[in-house]
Amino acid sequence: MNNKLADINKTLLMGPGPSSVSPSVYKALSTYTVGHLDKRFLDVMDETKEMLREMLKTKNNLTLPVSGTGTAAMESCFVNLIEKSDKILIIENGYFGSRMVNICQRLNADIDVLNFKWGEPLVIDDLKKKLNKNKYTIVAVVHAETSTGVRNPVEEIREHLDDDTLFLVDAVTSFGTIDLQVDRWGIDAVYSCSQKGLSCPPGASPVSFSARAEQKILKRGTLVPNFYLDMKQIIKYLDGSQRAYHHTAPINSMYAIYQGLYDLKSEGLSKTIDRHLEVHNILVEGLEQIGIKMLVDKPYRLPSLNAVIIPRGADDLKIREKLLLEHDIEIGAGLGPFAGKIWRIGLMGYSAKASNVERLLGALNKLL
Amino acid sequence: MNNKLADINKTLLMGPGPSSVSPSVYKALSTYTVGHLDKRFLDVMDETKEMLREMLKTKNNLTLPVSGTGTAAMESCFVNLIEKSDKILIIENGYFGSRMVNICQRLNADIDVLNFKWGEPLVIDDLKKKLNKNKYTIVAVVHAETSTGVRNPVEEIREHLDDDTLFLVDAVTSFGTIDLQVDRWGIDAVYSCSQKGLSCPPGASPVSFSARAEQKILKRGTLVPNFYLDMKQIIKYLDGSQRAYHHTAPINSMYAIYQGLYDLKSEGLSKTIDRHLEVHNILVEGLEQIGIKMLVDKPYRLPSLNAVIIPRGADDLKIREKLLLEHDIEIGAGLGPFAGKIWRIGLMGYSAKASNVERLLGALNKLL
Repeated sequence: MNNKLADINKTLLMGPGPSSVSPSVYKALSTYTVGHLDKRFLDVMDETKEMLREMLKTKNNLTLPVSGTGTAAMESCFVNLIEKSDKILIIENGYFGSRMVNICQRLNADIDVLNFKWGEPLVIDDLKKKLNKNKYTIVAVVHAETSTGVRNPVEEIREHLDDDTLFLVDAVTSFGTIDLQVDRWGIDAVYSCSQKGLSCPPGASPVSFSARAEQKILKRGTLVPNFYLDMKQIIKYLDGSQRAYHHTAPINSMYAIYQGLYDLKSEGLSKTIDRHLEVHNILVEGLEQIGIKMLVDKPYRLPSLNAVIIPRGADDLKIREKLLLEHDIEIGAGLGPFAGKIWRIGLMGYSAKASNVERLLGALNKLL
Repeated sequence: MNNKLADINKTLLMGPGPSSVSPSVYKALSTYTVGHLDKRFLDVMDETKEMLREMLKTKNNLTLPVSGTGTAAMESCFVNLIEKSDKILIIENGYFGSRMVNICQRLNADIDVLNFKWGEPLVIDDLKKKLNKNKYTIVAVVHAETSTGVRNPVEEIREHLDDDTLFLVDAVTSFGTIDLQVDRWGIDAVYSCSQKGLSCPPGASPVSFSARAEQKILKRGTLVPNFYLDMKQIIKYLDGSQRAYHHTAPINSMYAIYQGLYDLKSEGLSKTIDRHLEVHNILVEGLEQIGIKMLVDKPYRLPSLNAVIIPRGADDLKIREKLLLEHDIEIGAGLGPFAGKIWRIGLMGYSAKASNVERLLGALNKLL
């Protein structure tokens, strides 16, 4: 019987994620599995939480990876925080803002959506108008829209919110690649993933809740309609002194996150962020030289997710296929209204290197 | 900075799961990560589904691993199948039967529970009485109760159910360790995990739905209150020809499941089942020789999960600790009413070897 895993060769992942996994993380992944209540595993988890706090710039006690990929982390924030009478404002200017809406609809939440054009950032004045007219329990926004390459000015939002409004931020593509300051920016719930800035395979995903978000969770009057992601129970397993069994955590995926954070801390967060920007600048310059334009205006461009306009006459599918099959490089397709119109070039974590950009530019130059 | 992963040495996992991971699975785990829409990954997924069908003895089209650990798989079955007016019967004789009840409560389902004593199997006559009095949309039962070591006679249930009642089975600890025949036994929804019979780390978990269960999912009138586990969307990503993005699958955990199934198929399912029984018999005989008694009557004992009564005078915690720290062997504690009263000795997958039993018996002999 042929083993399909033997066919999988090394691919340079420069799409919207997963990014290329670093050798240290591959090693961590195959560290010996131990029990999910083993002290050694719980120690790894405790140090993971500590590193997460440091890298997220937060003192939040409730900070840990949940046992699923990024979408599970997104869902865990909403499903734990929303109760029936809550009014939610979702700022939507991309695919992942829409996903927030979809998740909240399933929870029968009272949702208000503030839309901005895909490919453009949110406008603070429009948000202020919306906030003046309504009172919200939660305001949610995507920091780095993976679908468009736009950075929303998350750092400017808190001052316009009521003190008791919870501020929820998607940091899936921003964590570990651009500046993110959970406490200083007044964020109450934030989530990310493992397969972008942390250079891990997808599997477990960081979340962090402020003290008052944690209190809201602990004081819920109704059961969370989701057992697997029920933070009140997860706290008893992974966060408290009880260590009560709730679910079997994905041990080796947690090892990977540990190593991803270890590597991030070892390089130094600000150095890592600088590296992403430098490599992004090399990419943009190189793309301009072969006539490829960026979708997003410079001040709101993400270094980690570069949305580029597919040049006139270029066959989207064929070029991505050739990149993958002939050059072992993956880049991402456009989503929603941008399908067939943009490519998404990821520069995240271990993939964010000048040599990788050169390799991609060389290949694109050949194919276009 | 000290790396905590370096402290983790090889441990023989003979608890309720995870079981020891096989070397082939460790290798699979660190196969190069590729994109979650990459054809090579989708090919691995397609062959995984094919092997899953074969090992579950089913022709069910909708058969795949979900992107979470066993509890997520359990939840995926209930959350996708239950709609508001549905009446559910849950057969409860252990911790995981109770968990089913807990999950259904969160879905506001109309639940009826048929209890049997922990440590004893369900009694078909009692079930028949219950079924004569009520009509149910779903009847759910745990095949192998990991909390007690009891095998419920799942093969005898279908004939007593109405034709249109959906039959839902937890096969977390039974899959790949004892006989399980999804189609012949008339099972409509079944789930398992990766970290027991398949000898993988926890991470992704098989589920399978019959054609009519799949139809119920496709024809739902209401949204599934869980985005991450929404099977209707997952079908479009992993099961159809659309390959539409829904969430980022845990690529490397899926590689692991692929390899676990590959190894199971290579040994041969019936040989694997025989091996579990043989090794179980060696364990029981050896335990008897050192005066340790089994909790469960012989006809309903699971070979994969051996619940043994802690001998009088033995210190539960201290002995488990010494086993782990001095002998590198993990066994499991009792849960619920059996906490402090039983140990749970797992013989699952790669851990189910005569040499491991000898090692455990030798260590226990020394410590008692």
